[in-house]
Amino acid sequence: MASQALDNPDRLVTSDDPEHPANLIPSLCAKFWTLGWVTGTGGGASIRDEQKELMKPQDIYVLSLAGQEASLKNRTYLRSPPSYKPSQCTPLFLAAFTRRGAGCCIHTHSHWAVLVTLILESSAATADGSHRVFEINNIEQIKGFGRGHGKTGNLGYHDTLRIPVIENTAHEEDLTEFLEEAMDKYPDTYAVLVRRHGVYVWGDNVHKAKTQCESLDYLFQLAVEMKQLGIPWISDVPVTLPKRS
Amino acid sequence: MASQALDNPDRLVTSDDPEHPANLIPSLCAKFWTLGWVTGTGGGASIRDEQKELMKPQDIYVLSLAGQEASLKNRTYLRSPPSYKPSQCTPLFLAAFTRRGAGCCIHTHSHWAVLVTLILESSAATADGSHRVFEINNIEQIKGFGRGHGKTGNLGYHDTLRIPVIENTAHEEDLTEFLEEAMDKYPDTYAVLVRRHGVYVWGDNVHKAKTQCESLDYLFQLAVEMKQLGIPWISDVPVTLPKRS
Amino acid sequence: MASQALDNPDRLVTSDDPEHPANLIPSLCAKFWTLGWVTGTGGGASIRDEQKELMKPQDIYVLSLAGQEASLKNRTYLRSPPSYKPSQCTPLFLAAFTRRGAGCCIHTHSHWAVLVTLILESSAATADGSHRVFEINNIEQIKGFGRGHGKTGNLGYHDTLRIPVIENTAHEEDLTEFLEEAMDKYPDTYAVLVRRHGVYVWGDNVHKAKTQCESLDYLFQLAVEMKQLGIPWISDVPVTLPKRS
Amino acid sequence: MASQALDNPDRLVTSDDPEHPANLIPSLCAKFWTLGWVTGTGGGASIRDEQKELMKPQDIYVLSLAGQEASLKNRTYLRSPPSYKPSQCTPLFLAAFTRRGAGCCIHTHSHWAVLVTLILESSAATADGSHRVFEINNIEQIKGFGRGHGKTGNLGYHDTLRIPVIENTAHEEDLTEFLEEAMDKYPDTYAVLVRRHGVYVWGDNVHKAKTQCESLDYLFQLAVEMKQLGIPWISDVPVTLPKRS
Repeated sequence: MASQALDNPDRLVTSDDPEHPANLIPSLCAKFWTLGWVTGTGGGASIRDEQKELMKPQDIYVLSLAGQEASLKNRTYLRSPPSYKPSQCTPLFLAAFTRRGAGCCIHTHSHWAVLVTLILESSAATADGSHRVFEINNIEQIKGFGRGHGKTGNLGYHDTLRIPVIENTAHEEDLTEFLEEAMDKYPDTYAVLVRRHGVYVWGDNVHKAKTQCESLDYLFQLAVEMKQLGIPWISDVPVTLPKRS
Repeated sequence: MASQALDNPDRLVTSDDPEHPANLIPSLCAKFWTLGWVTGTGGGASIRDEQKELMKPQDIYVLSLAGQEASLKNRTYLRSPPSYKPSQCTPLFLAAFTRRGAGCCIHTHSHWAVLVTLILESSAATADGSHRVFEINNIEQIKGFGRGHGKTGNLGYHDTLRIPVIENTAHEEDLTEFLEEAMDKYPDTYAVLVRRHGVYVWGDNVHKAKTQCESLDYLFQLAVEMKQLGIPWISDVPVTLPKRS
Repeated sequence: MASQALDNPDRLVTSDDPEHPANLIPSLCAKFWTLGWVTGTGGGASIRDEQKELMKPQDIYVLSLAGQEASLKNRTYLRSPPSYKPSQCTPLFLAAFTRRGAGCCIHTHSHWAVLVTLILESSAATADGSHRVFEINNIEQIKGFGRGHGKTGNLGYHDTLRIPVIENTAHEEDLTEFLEEAMDKYPDTYAVLVRRHGVYVWGDNVHKAKTQCESLDYLFQLAVEMKQLGIPWISDVPVTLPKRS
Repeated sequence: MASQALDNPDRLVTSDDPEHPANLIPSLCAKFWTLGWVTGTGGGASIRDEQKELMKPQDIYVLSLAGQEASLKNRTYLRSPPSYKPSQCTPLFLAAFTRRGAGCCIHTHSHWAVLVTLILESSAATADGSHRVFEINNIEQIKGFGRGHGKTGNLGYHDTLRIPVIENTAHEEDLTEFLEEAMDKYPDTYAVLVRRHGVYVWGDNVHKAKTQCESLDYLFQLAVEMKQLGIPWISDVPVTLPKRS
């Protein structure tokens, strides 16, 4: 079938199966658009698309992962849409695929994510570099994240979720080096924030990537609202209600 | 029909009737997803589902309530989906069914609910334990709640709505004991908040549970906005406008 | 056809015309539900409905206006749904129809409307009674309102929009007296706010009522956000930018 | 075909092609309505429409651009809907078409846009006239804007996006002079804010106009939230994270 596809690359983006990427990516992007995650030129899910909610299977690029370990720059496109150019996010998506075995990577410009990076940047913590990491604990939704690639089970309610923040760059593909560095330094993370830009979230498959992306956006929104109400993101000692008698 | 169902359990989740739970639960979850109540891994309506807006009848568990009074732990599954495990919320849903005769129980991670518990926790009232109850009065939407199981009629505009807050636990099924305790202490409540987690809301039937869940989320949102504007949730003496002459 | 309808009242709520009330009311309520205006038990458009977004033509009451001038209490129902009771809002809707010749009246529990009444109530202006009126000027959207029943044209950008606030009552139909009083005192208004409750908005026809209701909710939301940013609702002297040279 | 159209003007608003303006304008307005950009009587996309989400091709005006350079006032309508009057925005849309070669112009009453003008107006910067321009830099979404009509490429992350603010007028068509003046003074801008009113955004084609309009609304929302959190819109010196070692 792969050789058939090379004869007729458009077969790679044609399927009757609703779970096929050719159908899943457009339906995900339509959904993400309504959430404000991929409006305008922002965000994506492996393809360059200016109008995410109008995305069609024909707009999809198909890449080969063969040889990607050796060189991320040397990309083989099995199928390309006629009138677009590849996304600047491509090397970032590939990093999640090759370094973490991710099955799906989502990039959003969610303004909750951007606001979290702005709050970290403006906080007193800047001097000692602690603005590089978003940290939150004792919130139920933290359970939505796996413990890390290759580990079993999810984070617990009392665990601290840590999402590293990397510097933004003038050209999006120049983020790759920083992203890989953050992946090395935080081997268990499934997401990386980009300062004044957005977030990359991945997962072992489409469903896990989507679940983690939704859980993270939920936590970013809560964190901004907690900040506005003067409630800290980390509660060092879990407050326990006295047992009712 | 029940014996037929046991021969072919999938009949339990197949119906042409739009009001059948097999069709109602997926349509409710799709709707709740758009409200942000059950995103990521959060919330549910008796079934474990990672992608609420994509829920299908085939994803539904069917349980027998026979013998539940004696032991909530000893559950009989009449039908189970092939590739999921039962929700940790199951004993909590069952508590509403057996202790209150509820026909439907909804669990959301609405961030308005979580913010209300955070505001109560951080308020000066913590010392004397009053952070265990959310209280609001003199808001029209309070009329959306029944007076209590077995009582007739709804709360009035001047009545105070009280929703107890229970402690969150590392494992969701360990909440059951606290939930039952709160149900005993507040025999008229149709909802229980869980600190830094969300809310459980039930009703005599699906329509009442949904109505009360929507009314409560409306009040939680209003309460957070009142807090941001410095307006208290309780007005001890109803302010009366002088009669116009 | 009216006599046919009396023989078979369900004909009153059956039509192939999308502009017929039998089809328009359910589609409006579905839309208003997504805006958060009629969630739970709140709000409506002349009919009692617990699940606005699920409303069906069969759920609609049909009333006769004959003799309504003489007595609003003496209502003739041409057609009633089998399993509901008439809305407590009915006399309020009728007041708009008979006193103002309105073709449509909408009642919402929009939390922006409720917050505006709470802000007015908590402001220093309470003592002199000025909390009875919401006032805003120099906002373009004010142009969305007619000058008043029987007058031609709409308000201008520099005009002050005034919406009276009436006291809420324990029983919704007891609002009628206050509503009529406010209509008398503010003969040009197309809306009345109800403290800690919501808003009634009407118009000469369905399209004008909907347009004015949307414009008003827009202004209420803007007013709450202006309050949070410390910007007053009334600017006495229009600020004029110096002519660029 | 143009002469055929003049014989039967309704052909100008009839097409099976989803990309034809007859189909594109109604679908855009339906979408913009859900975003709150064109509710009530506010906003539009070249046609007067009170109910943007219900817009039909038959509601569309068709104008000739021939001779527009000479006189914007002397407009030729090739086709007019029977029961509407032309929008007051018409000369403003035409200014974008004739002066900038725009293919599409969008006008919204987005409350984020209005709040940005209110914040600028109330800021200490008023005295020296700097409230006439909204400025923001070092936000990724700025890349969503072209460098200017006739220039190639888009703005960069570190570039400052500048959107001029013009005074609002009692009659919308009187804005034309101010709009043209702002276009002359800011030759590279694709948008103009109108104080206490909204924004006009255009682009070389429908897709670019829509993309720039979404990106701008994203930035306006972010700017209001930054203001609420005390974070400035302009960061003179890009903060650079130290290289991790």
